[in-house]
Amino acid sequence: MRILGVDPGLTRCGLGVIDTLPARKAKMVAVDVLRTPSADSVDLRLGAIAEAFDTWLDTYRPDVVAIERVFARNDVSTIMGTAQASGLTMGLAARRGLPVAMHTPSEVKAAITGSGRADKKQVTSMVTRILGLDAPPKPADAADALAIAICHSWRGALSAQSTPGKNKDLTERKAGGRQGSGLTKAQQQWAEAMRRAR
Amino acid sequence: MRILGVDPGLTRCGLGVIDTLPARKAKMVAVDVLRTPSADSVDLRLGAIAEAFDTWLDTYRPDVVAIERVFARNDVSTIMGTAQASGLTMGLAARRGLPVAMHTPSEVKAAITGSGRADKKQVTSMVTRILGLDAPPKPADAADALAIAICHSWRGALSAQSTPGKNKDLTERKAGGRQGSGLTKAQQQWAEAMRRAR
Repeated sequence: MRILGVDPGLTRCGLGVIDTLPARKAKMVAVDVLRTPSADSVDLRLGAIAEAFDTWLDTYRPDVVAIERVFARNDVSTIMGTAQASGLTMGLAARRGLPVAMHTPSEVKAAITGSGRADKKQVTSMVTRILGLDAPPKPADAADALAIAICHSWRGALSAQSTPGKNKDLTERKAGGRQGSGLTKAQQQWAEAMRRAR
Repeated sequence: MRILGVDPGLTRCGLGVIDTLPARKAKMVAVDVLRTPSADSVDLRLGAIAEAFDTWLDTYRPDVVAIERVFARNDVSTIMGTAQASGLTMGLAARRGLPVAMHTPSEVKAAITGSGRADKKQVTSMVTRILGLDAPPKPADAADALAIAICHSWRGALSAQSTPGKNKDLTERKAGGRQGSGLTKAQQQWAEAMRRAR
Protein backbone atom coordinates (compact mmCIF):
# COMPACT_ATOMS: atom_id res chain seq x y z
CA MET A 1 0.00 0.00 0.00
CA ARG A 2 1.25 3.46 -0.90
CA ILE A 3 0.65 6.25 1.60
CA LEU A 4 1.11 10.00 1.09
CA GLY A 5 1.74 11.75 4.40
CA VAL A 6 1.02 15.48 4.61
CA ASP A 7 2.34 17.88 7.26
CA PRO A 8 0.19 20.86 6.27
CA GLY A 9 1.30 24.47 6.42
CA LEU A 10 1.53 27.66 4.38
CA THR A 11 5.19 28.39 4.98
CA ARG A 12 6.25 24.74 4.91
CA CYS A 13 4.02 21.92 3.65
CA GLY A 14 5.71 18.54 4.08
CA LEU A 15 4.89 15.71 1.67
CA GLY A 16 6.22 12.16 2.10
CA VAL A 17 5.35 9.00 0.17
CA ILE A 18 6.04 5.49 1.48
CA ASP A 19 5.28 1.97 0.31
CA THR A 20 4.46 -0.40 3.15
CA LEU A 21 6.44 -3.65 3.39
CA PRO A 22 5.88 -6.76 5.55
CA ALA A 23 6.89 -6.78 9.25
CA ARG A 24 6.15 -3.12 9.94
CA LYS A 25 8.78 -1.99 7.46
CA ALA A 26 8.33 0.64 4.79
CA LYS A 27 10.22 2.05 1.84
CA MET A 28 10.57 5.76 1.17
CA VAL A 29 9.37 6.71 -2.33
CA ALA A 30 9.60 10.50 -2.25
CA VAL A 31 9.81 13.36 0.21
CA ASP A 32 9.85 17.13 -0.05
CA VAL A 33 8.84 20.25 1.82
CA LEU A 34 6.96 22.82 -0.25
CA ARG A 35 7.80 26.35 0.73
CA THR A 36 5.85 29.46 -0.20
CA PRO A 37 7.22 32.94 0.51
CA SER A 38 5.54 34.74 3.40
CA ALA A 39 5.71 37.95 1.35
CA ASP A 40 3.16 36.50 -1.10
CA SER A 41 -0.55 36.83 -0.43
CA VAL A 42 -2.30 33.81 1.10
CA ASP A 43 -4.25 33.00 -2.06
CA LEU A 44 -1.08 32.84 -4.18
CA ARG A 45 0.56 30.60 -1.59
CA LEU A 46 -2.47 28.29 -1.53
CA GLY A 47 -2.59 28.28 -5.33
CA ALA A 48 1.03 27.13 -5.43
CA ILE A 49 0.31 24.40 -2.86
CA ALA A 50 -2.74 23.24 -4.86
CA GLU A 51 -0.63 22.92 -8.01
CA ALA A 52 2.17 21.03 -6.27
CA PHE A 53 -0.15 18.74 -4.30
CA ASP A 54 -2.14 17.71 -7.38
CA THR A 55 1.14 17.02 -9.18
CA TRP A 56 2.18 14.71 -6.33
CA LEU A 57 -1.16 12.88 -6.48
CA ASP A 58 -0.70 12.44 -10.25
CA THR A 59 2.93 11.37 -9.97
CA TYR A 60 2.83 9.01 -7.00
CA ARG A 61 -0.80 7.79 -7.09
CA PRO A 62 -1.15 7.01 -3.37
CA ASP A 63 -3.82 4.59 -2.10
CA VAL A 64 -4.50 6.79 0.89
CA VAL A 65 -3.60 10.29 2.09
CA ALA A 66 -2.75 10.77 5.79
CA ILE A 67 -2.80 14.35 7.06
CA GLU A 68 -1.75 15.73 10.42
CA ARG A 69 -4.81 16.94 12.29
CA VAL A 70 -4.74 20.66 13.06
CA PHE A 71 -5.70 21.96 16.46
CA ALA A 72 -7.18 25.33 17.21
CA ARG A 73 -5.38 25.69 20.52
CA ASN A 74 -2.09 26.80 18.93
CA ASP A 75 -1.07 30.30 17.94
CA VAL A 76 -3.95 31.88 16.02
CA SER A 77 -1.92 33.37 13.15
CA THR A 78 -0.22 30.03 12.47
CA ILE A 79 -3.36 27.98 12.86
CA MET A 80 -5.27 29.86 10.17
CA GLY A 81 -2.64 29.14 7.53
CA THR A 82 -2.36 25.53 8.63
CA ALA A 83 -6.14 25.08 8.58
CA GLN A 84 -6.33 26.61 5.11
CA ALA A 85 -3.53 24.40 3.76
CA SER A 86 -5.00 21.28 5.38
CA GLY A 87 -8.48 22.08 4.05
CA LEU A 88 -7.04 22.50 0.58
CA THR A 89 -5.15 19.19 0.57
CA MET A 90 -8.12 17.35 2.14
CA GLY A 91 -10.48 18.66 -0.53
CA LEU A 92 -8.10 17.92 -3.41
CA ALA A 93 -7.54 14.34 -2.23
CA ALA A 94 -11.21 13.64 -1.41
CA ARG A 95 -12.48 14.87 -4.76
CA ARG A 96 -10.38 12.14 -6.41
CA GLY A 97 -12.04 9.51 -4.24
CA LEU A 98 -8.89 8.99 -2.19
CA PRO A 99 -9.46 8.00 1.45
CA VAL A 100 -8.18 10.73 3.75
CA ALA A 101 -7.06 9.86 7.29
CA MET A 102 -6.26 12.34 10.02
CA HIS A 103 -3.78 11.69 12.84
CA THR A 104 -2.92 13.99 15.71
CA PRO A 105 0.70 15.02 16.35
CA SER A 106 0.81 12.95 19.53
CA GLU A 107 -0.61 9.88 17.75
CA VAL A 108 2.18 10.23 15.20
CA LYS A 109 4.91 10.66 17.81
CA ALA A 110 3.59 7.75 19.89
CA ALA A 111 3.40 5.46 16.87
CA ILE A 112 6.94 6.27 15.73
CA THR A 113 8.84 6.57 19.01
CA GLY A 114 6.58 5.04 21.67
CA SER A 115 6.06 8.43 23.31
CA GLY A 116 3.47 11.05 22.44
CA ARG A 117 5.85 13.70 23.77
CA ALA A 118 8.90 12.76 21.69
CA ASP A 119 10.92 15.63 20.24
CA LYS A 120 11.69 16.31 16.59
CA LYS A 121 15.13 14.71 16.85
CA GLN A 122 13.75 11.42 18.17
CA VAL A 123 11.09 11.31 15.46
CA THR A 124 13.64 12.01 12.72
CA SER A 125 15.98 9.37 14.10
CA MET A 126 13.26 6.69 14.19
CA VAL A 127 11.95 7.60 10.73
CA THR A 128 15.48 7.25 9.37
CA ARG A 129 15.82 3.82 10.96
CA ILE A 130 12.35 2.52 10.00
CA LEU A 131 12.84 3.47 6.36
CA GLY A 132 16.39 2.09 6.32
CA LEU A 133 17.89 5.38 5.18
CA ASP A 134 21.64 6.10 5.32
CA ALA A 135 21.00 9.62 6.60
CA PRO A 136 18.03 11.62 7.93
CA PRO A 137 15.67 12.68 5.12
CA LYS A 138 16.18 16.18 3.76
CA PRO A 139 15.12 18.97 3.96
CA ALA A 140 15.07 19.34 7.75
CA ASP A 141 11.28 19.16 8.22
CA ALA A 142 10.83 16.30 5.76
CA ALA A 143 10.77 13.56 8.41
CA ASP A 144 7.42 14.78 9.79
CA ALA A 145 5.46 13.98 6.64
CA LEU A 146 7.08 10.52 6.45
CA ALA A 147 6.26 9.97 10.14
CA ILE A 148 2.58 10.68 9.45
CA ALA A 149 2.58 8.14 6.60
CA ILE A 150 4.32 5.50 8.76
CA CYS A 151 1.92 6.19 11.64
CA HIS A 152 -1.01 5.61 9.32
CA SER A 153 0.29 2.26 8.11
CA TRP A 154 0.83 1.03 11.67
CA ARG A 155 -2.40 2.32 13.15
CA GLY A 156 -4.24 0.61 10.31
CA ALA A 157 -2.47 -2.65 11.17
CA LEU A 158 -3.27 -2.26 14.87
CA SER A 159 -6.91 -1.72 14.01
CA ALA A 160 -6.92 -4.96 12.03
CA GLN A 161 -5.33 -6.85 14.93
CA SER A 162 -8.08 -5.67 17.23
CA THR A 163 -10.74 -7.39 15.11
CA PRO A 164 -9.40 -10.96 14.94
CA GLY A 165 -11.18 -13.63 12.91
CA LYS A 166 -12.40 -11.20 10.30
CA ASN A 167 -10.76 -12.14 7.05
CA LYS A 168 -10.99 -8.78 5.33
CA ASP A 169 -8.52 -7.46 2.84
CA LEU A 170 -6.29 -4.61 3.91
CA THR A 171 -8.42 -1.85 2.45
CA GLU A 172 -11.52 -3.14 4.17
CA ARG A 173 -9.68 -3.58 7.42
CA LYS A 174 -8.45 -0.02 7.28
CA ALA A 175 -12.04 1.13 6.85
CA GLY A 176 -13.06 -0.62 10.05
CA GLY A 177 -13.29 2.52 12.09
CA ARG A 178 -11.75 5.88 12.72
CA GLN A 179 -10.33 4.69 16.03
CA GLY A 180 -7.49 2.72 14.55
CA SER A 181 -7.13 3.79 10.96
CA GLY A 182 -8.32 7.38 10.86
CA LEU A 183 -10.90 6.33 8.24
CA THR A 184 -14.62 5.99 8.79
CA LYS A 185 -16.82 3.50 6.98
CA ALA A 186 -18.63 6.40 5.28
CA GLN A 187 -15.32 7.74 3.94
CA GLN A 188 -14.45 4.34 2.53
CA GLN A 189 -17.89 3.86 0.95
CA TRP A 190 -17.73 7.27 -0.67
CA ALA A 191 -14.20 6.64 -1.92
CA GLU A 192 -15.28 3.36 -3.48
CA ALA A 193 -18.33 4.95 -5.09
CA MET A 194 -16.05 7.62 -6.59
CA ARG A 195 -13.61 5.01 -7.87
CA ARG A 196 -16.42 3.05 -9.51
CA ALA A 197 -17.78 6.21 -11.12
CA ARG A 198 -14.48 6.92 -12.90
CA MET B 1 -16.74 42.89 -14.80
CA ARG B 2 -17.98 39.60 -13.41
CA ILE B 3 -17.42 38.93 -9.71
CA LEU B 4 -17.90 35.65 -7.83
CA GLY B 5 -18.59 36.29 -4.14
CA VAL B 6 -17.88 33.47 -1.69
CA ASP B 7 -19.26 33.18 1.85
CA PRO B 8 -17.11 30.22 2.92
CA GLY B 9 -18.23 27.45 5.25
CA LEU B 10 -18.45 23.69 5.59
CA THR B 11 -22.15 23.47 6.44
CA ARG B 12 -23.17 26.31 4.14
CA CYS B 13 -20.91 27.77 1.45
CA GLY B 14 -22.58 30.70 -0.29
CA LEU B 15 -21.71 31.48 -3.92
CA GLY B 16 -23.02 34.53 -5.77
CA VAL B 17 -22.12 35.86 -9.22
CA ILE B 18 -22.82 39.43 -10.35
CA ASP B 19 -22.03 41.50 -13.40
CA THR B 20 -21.23 45.12 -12.60
CA LEU B 21 -23.20 47.84 -14.42
CA PRO B 22 -22.66 51.62 -14.59
CA ALA B 23 -23.73 53.87 -11.70
CA ARG B 24 -23.00 51.40 -8.92
CA LYS B 25 -25.60 48.98 -10.23
CA ALA B 26 -25.13 45.28 -10.71
CA LYS B 27 -27.00 42.34 -12.23
CA MET B 28 -27.35 38.99 -10.49
CA VAL B 29 -26.10 36.11 -12.66
CA ALA B 30 -26.36 33.16 -10.27
CA VAL B 31 -26.61 32.40 -6.58
CA ASP B 32 -26.66 29.27 -4.49
CA VAL B 33 -25.70 27.94 -1.08
CA LEU B 34 -23.80 24.65 -1.12
CA ARG B 35 -24.68 22.46 1.81
CA THR B 36 -22.73 19.45 2.99
CA PRO B 37 -24.12 17.11 5.66
CA SER B 38 -22.48 17.47 9.06
CA ALA B 39 -22.63 13.67 9.42
CA ASP B 40 -20.06 13.32 6.62
CA SER B 41 -16.35 13.49 7.40
CA VAL B 42 -14.63 16.83 6.79
CA ASP B 43 -12.61 15.56 3.83
CA LEU B 44 -15.75 14.37 2.00
CA ARG B 45 -17.42 17.71 2.66
CA LEU B 46 -14.38 19.60 1.35
CA GLY B 47 -14.20 17.28 -1.67
CA ALA B 48 -17.82 18.11 -2.50
CA ILE B 49 -17.13 21.84 -2.13
CA ALA B 50 -14.05 21.56 -4.37
CA GLU B 51 -16.09 19.88 -7.11
CA ALA B 52 -18.91 22.41 -6.92
CA PHE B 53 -16.61 25.44 -6.73
CA ASP B 54 -14.57 24.38 -9.76
CA THR B 55 -17.82 23.81 -11.66
CA TRP B 56 -18.89 27.37 -10.83
CA LEU B 57 -15.54 28.75 -12.01
CA ASP B 58 -15.92 26.78 -15.27
CA THR B 59 -19.56 27.78 -15.78
CA TYR B 60 -19.50 31.47 -14.87
CA ARG B 61 -15.86 32.40 -15.62
CA PRO B 62 -15.56 35.30 -13.16
CA ASP B 63 -12.90 38.01 -13.58
CA VAL B 64 -12.27 38.11 -9.86
CA VAL B 65 -13.22 36.07 -6.78
CA ALA B 66 -14.12 37.94 -3.58
CA ILE B 67 -14.11 35.88 -0.38
CA GLU B 68 -15.22 36.84 3.11
CA ARG B 69 -12.19 37.05 5.35
CA VAL B 70 -12.27 34.59 8.23
CA PHE B 71 -11.38 35.67 11.73
CA ALA B 72 -9.96 33.45 14.43
CA ARG B 73 -11.81 35.21 17.22
CA ASN B 74 -15.06 33.30 16.60
CA ASP B 75 -16.08 29.93 17.95
CA VAL B 76 -13.18 27.53 17.46
CA SER B 77 -15.15 24.58 16.06
CA THR B 78 -16.83 26.79 13.45
CA ILE B 79 -13.69 28.67 12.54
CA MET B 80 -11.74 25.55 11.59
CA GLY B 81 -14.34 24.47 9.02
CA THR B 82 -14.62 28.00 7.69
CA ALA B 83 -10.85 28.35 7.42
CA GLN B 84 -10.61 25.01 5.61
CA ALA B 85 -13.38 25.91 3.15
CA SER B 86 -11.91 29.38 2.57
CA GLY B 87 -8.42 27.93 2.05
CA LEU B 88 -9.82 25.48 -0.47
CA THR B 89 -11.69 28.08 -2.52
CA MET B 90 -8.74 30.53 -2.37
CA GLY B 91 -6.34 27.86 -3.63
CA LEU B 92 -8.66 26.67 -6.41
CA ALA B 93 -9.23 30.23 -7.67
CA ALA B 94 -5.58 31.31 -7.40
CA ARG B 95 -4.27 28.27 -9.29
CA ARG B 96 -6.33 29.43 -12.28
CA GLY B 97 -4.68 32.83 -12.16
CA LEU B 98 -7.85 34.49 -10.89
CA PRO B 99 -7.34 37.51 -8.62
CA VAL B 100 -8.66 36.76 -5.14
CA ALA B 101 -9.83 39.60 -2.89
CA MET B 102 -10.68 39.30 0.79
CA HIS B 103 -13.19 41.52 2.57
CA THR B 104 -14.11 41.46 6.25
CA PRO B 105 -17.74 41.01 7.33
CA SER B 106 -17.88 44.61 8.58
CA GLU B 107 -16.44 45.95 5.30
CA VAL B 108 -19.18 44.09 3.47
CA LYS B 109 -21.95 45.33 5.76
CA ALA B 110 -20.66 48.90 5.65
CA ALA B 111 -20.41 48.87 1.86
CA ILE B 112 -23.93 47.52 1.38
CA THR B 113 -25.89 49.28 4.15
CA GLY B 114 -23.67 52.12 5.33
CA SER B 115 -23.19 50.47 8.71
CA GLY B 116 -20.59 47.87 9.66
CA ARG B 117 -22.99 46.57 12.31
CA ALA B 118 -26.01 46.03 10.05
CA ASP B 119 -28.01 42.85 10.63
CA LYS B 120 -28.74 40.09 8.14
CA LYS B 121 -32.19 41.47 7.32
CA GLN B 122 -30.80 44.91 6.38
CA VAL B 123 -28.09 43.33 4.21
CA THR B 124 -30.62 41.11 2.43
CA SER B 125 -32.97 44.02 1.87
CA MET B 126 -30.23 46.21 0.34
CA VAL B 127 -28.86 43.37 -1.82
CA THR B 128 -32.39 42.80 -3.17
CA ARG B 129 -32.73 46.49 -4.00
CA ILE B 130 -29.24 46.96 -5.51
CA LEU B 131 -29.68 43.97 -7.80
CA GLY B 132 -33.24 45.02 -8.75
CA LEU B 133 -34.73 41.71 -7.67
CA ASP B 134 -38.48 41.22 -7.16
CA ALA B 135 -37.88 39.22 -3.99
CA PRO B 136 -34.95 38.47 -1.66
CA PRO B 137 -32.54 35.92 -3.21
CA LYS B 138 -33.06 32.31 -2.15
CA PRO B 139 -32.00 30.22 -0.28
CA ALA B 140 -32.01 32.25 2.95
CA ASP B 141 -28.23 32.71 3.27
CA ALA B 142 -27.73 33.47 -0.42
CA ALA B 143 -27.69 37.25 0.02
CA ASP B 144 -24.37 37.16 1.89
CA ALA B 145 -22.35 35.87 -1.07
CA LEU B 146 -23.96 38.48 -3.34
CA ALA B 147 -23.20 41.19 -0.76
CA ILE B 148 -19.49 40.22 -0.81
CA ALA B 149 -19.45 40.47 -4.61
CA ILE B 150 -21.22 43.88 -4.55
CA CYS B 151 -18.86 45.11 -1.82
CA HIS B 152 -15.89 44.15 -3.97
CA SER B 153 -17.16 46.05 -6.99
CA TRP B 154 -17.72 49.21 -4.94
CA ARG B 155 -14.53 49.11 -2.96
CA GLY B 156 -12.65 48.74 -6.22
CA ALA B 157 -14.41 51.84 -7.55
CA LEU B 158 -13.66 53.76 -4.36
CA SER B 159 -10.00 52.82 -4.68
CA ALA B 160 -9.96 54.22 -8.22
CA GLN B 161 -11.55 57.47 -7.04
CA SER B 162 -8.81 57.91 -4.48
CA THR B 163 -6.10 58.01 -7.16
CA PRO B 164 -7.41 60.74 -9.49
CA GLY B 165 -5.63 61.63 -12.69
CA LYS B 166 -4.37 58.12 -13.26
CA ASN B 167 -5.95 56.89 -16.45
CA LYS B 168 -5.72 53.19 -15.75
CA ASP B 169 -8.18 50.61 -16.95
CA LEU B 170 -10.45 48.99 -14.40
CA THR B 171 -8.30 45.94 -13.86
CA GLU B 172 -5.22 48.02 -13.21
CA ARG B 173 -7.11 50.34 -10.94
CA LYS B 174 -8.40 47.43 -8.94
CA ALA B 175 -4.82 46.29 -8.48
CA GLY B 176 -3.84 49.63 -7.00
CA GLY B 177 -3.67 48.41 -3.44
CA ARG B 178 -5.21 46.11 -0.92
CA GLN B 179 -6.71 49.08 0.96
CA GLY B 180 -9.52 49.68 -1.46
CA SER B 181 -9.80 46.64 -3.67
CA GLY B 182 -8.62 43.73 -1.56
CA LEU B 183 -5.99 43.00 -4.24
CA THR B 184 -2.27 43.66 -3.96
CA LYS B 185 -0.05 44.53 -6.89
CA ALA B 186 1.78 41.22 -6.44
CA GLN B 187 -1.49 39.30 -6.73
CA GLN B 188 -2.36 41.12 -9.92
CA GLN B 189 1.08 40.56 -11.43
CA TRP B 190 0.96 36.87 -10.62
CA ALA B 191 -2.56 36.57 -12.04
CA GLU B 192 -1.45 38.22 -15.27
CA ALA B 193 1.61 35.99 -15.53
CA MET B 194 -0.66 32.95 -15.11
CA ARG B 195 -3.08 34.20 -17.77
CA ARG B 196 -0.23 34.78 -20.23
CA ALA B 197 1.15 31.31 -19.52
CA ARG B 198 -2.12 29.63 -20.52
